[in-house]
Amino acid sequence: MKKIINQPKDVVNEMLDGIVYMHDHLVERLDGLEVIVRKADKKGKVGLISGGGSGHEPSHAGFVGQGMLSAAVCGAVFTSPTPDQILEAIKASDEGAGVFMVIKNYSGDVMNFEMAQELAEMEGIDVASVVVDDDIAVENSLYTQGQRGVAGTILVHKILGYAAEAGQSLDEIKSLADNLVPHIKTIGLALSGATVPEVGKPGFVLAEDEFEYGVGIHGEPGYRKEKLQPSLELAKELTTKLLDAFDSKAGDKFALLINGLGSTPLMEEYIFANDVANLLKEKGVEVVFKKIGDYMTSLDMAGLSLTLMKVADDAWLDALEAPVVTPAW
Amino acid sequence: MKKIINQPKDVVNEMLDGIVYMHDHLVERLDGLEVIVRKADKKGKVGLISGGGSGHEPSHAGFVGQGMLSAAVCGAVFTSPTPDQILEAIKASDEGAGVFMVIKNYSGDVMNFEMAQELAEMEGIDVASVVVDDDIAVENSLYTQGQRGVAGTILVHKILGYAAEAGQSLDEIKSLADNLVPHIKTIGLALSGATVPEVGKPGFVLAEDEFEYGVGIHGEPGYRKEKLQPSLELAKELTTKLLDAFDSKAGDKFALLINGLGSTPLMEEYIFANDVANLLKEKGVEVVFKKIGDYMTSLDMAGLSLTLMKVADDAWLDALEAPVVTPAW
Repeated sequence: MKKIINQPKDVVNEMLDGIVYMHDHLVERLDGLEVIVRKADKKGKVGLISGGGSGHEPSHAGFVGQGMLSAAVCGAVFTSPTPDQILEAIKASDEGAGVFMVIKNYSGDVMNFEMAQELAEMEGIDVASVVVDDDIAVENSLYTQGQRGVAGTILVHKILGYAAEAGQSLDEIKSLADNLVPHIKTIGLALSGATVPEVGKPGFVLAEDEFEYGVGIHGEPGYRKEKLQPSLELAKELTTKLLDAFDSKAGDKFALLINGLGSTPLMEEYIFANDVANLLKEKGVEVVFKKIGDYMTSLDMAGLSLTLMKVADDAWLDALEAPVVTPAW
Repeated sequence: MKKIINQPKDVVNEMLDGIVYMHDHLVERLDGLEVIVRKADKKGKVGLISGGGSGHEPSHAGFVGQGMLSAAVCGAVFTSPTPDQILEAIKASDEGAGVFMVIKNYSGDVMNFEMAQELAEMEGIDVASVVVDDDIAVENSLYTQGQRGVAGTILVHKILGYAAEAGQSLDEIKSLADNLVPHIKTIGLALSGATVPEVGKPGFVLAEDEFEYGVGIHGEPGYRKEKLQPSLELAKELTTKLLDAFDSKAGDKFALLINGLGSTPLMEEYIFANDVANLLKEKGVEVVFKKIGDYMTSLDMAGLSLTLMKVADDAWLDALEAPVVTPAW
């Protein structure tokens, strides 16, 4: 294992201190906890939180800030945060109008966020949530019932963050979230496995000329291994699978997110983007919002994911385009 | 070689098309050329251009946009752009007030940018330039006389971009650049070499437990190989060398840039940042501006660089903090 770290057991703690140091005008850390919160006056709006295991940086702490998340709860690497950590994030984010939780669909996350919700409600805080399950690659993966929550989650942060900033109520945000999430779909591929620091070796190994479609962001198995193909072939497979998963018709508008998994150079992401662009043009798909970079990573995994969101409501596009002040959006 | 590309010879061309597709509201490409230009009305201000070999994405095309570069010239991978490409970037960026060029200190770049300057002047365009040589690791490297130009270059883009946007004259920008560049110093380390697509294997190989201090962004040799150390030890070496290179005194203010080289996960960059933070605090160094991420990369090289800029003029801080509209700042 070749990593710029100190002790493997300290990676999350030291990383969170590094995040706070580098972005101290935007965020702070709850004392003694793995929770990053927004530095901002409380204005009686709905608090918006997310979180999960660490190792997906900049998710989720990088999206804490004005117009997006109120707080991010950061579990151990690839491990759900505990209910008490989540409860503290809820309490810190409550401005009197309730707190909304964006949960990626992993069994541990869903269980612990729901437990935290019960604890918070016992303390008189209204809490609602949505479970993001955008990864269409496989059903019922290693840590999941149903489909996994992956890169599309950051679009949920952005659109719900806009709604919260605009002063929408907890009920309105819940309704928006329930409407939005089914319109977001993602599929990815990996060229290499990720090495969890405390494990010290990759979660899976691919041959030197091999890659795998549909791998999860914790290294969960995908749906097919192949000899490495040109970018255009990868783009064809992912774009086709994604479009097939939508019930779409002419005139539909889409948002596009190309997400690097951690150690893929931006040059490769742009080359892939160019192939996706040509394929979408061929199919007459109208793309009204585009974003590229490393947003939902898997430590040092090489690979990328492709997300499409059907813009079923023009207000969602306004929400995506609105300026925010965060470390990573 | 495991990369998401099509033909190795096409990587720059396809990448540039991908950049334009993903950021088409901000930038466009000069027809048939490897030049990315800003989409903006010409307002009679000084044009600001930069460029060099490709493989350092998002540098430099990612910094084209309002408040930063007017254009970026993108050579073949790790290869200087040709004078005629640079000339076209100058002509496209000229708004009648002259064009300023930010050149990284590599012999080929310096020669070709200067040749383009002569050609442009023959066409009646005023051109001035600065050569950035912020890498303190070694003198007279593989492709350089003197010190190499590396990540600190993006701070030059930002500060000169602010000056150009504010309507400063070519002479004023030249004077600012000459004053600014000596206050920017960078040093880095690599955990692995970069693989140029047309070469197909890494430019250098380190043992599984080995890293190297001072490697250049084209894989130029550094100054010492060692068995991998904890992040804190790496931070000590780089921070000490960097502070020693400044003639600094109590009360000096610094800007800090931590830059990933391409395949280093953000988690590791933040852990390193935390170590740097503690060391700078111990030494009483006041940091007034901070930035972290992958800005001046070397394809898929693992590693990072540390940049300090002495803020000798408070106006430089205003310039760093000013909002811009670019793909990557």
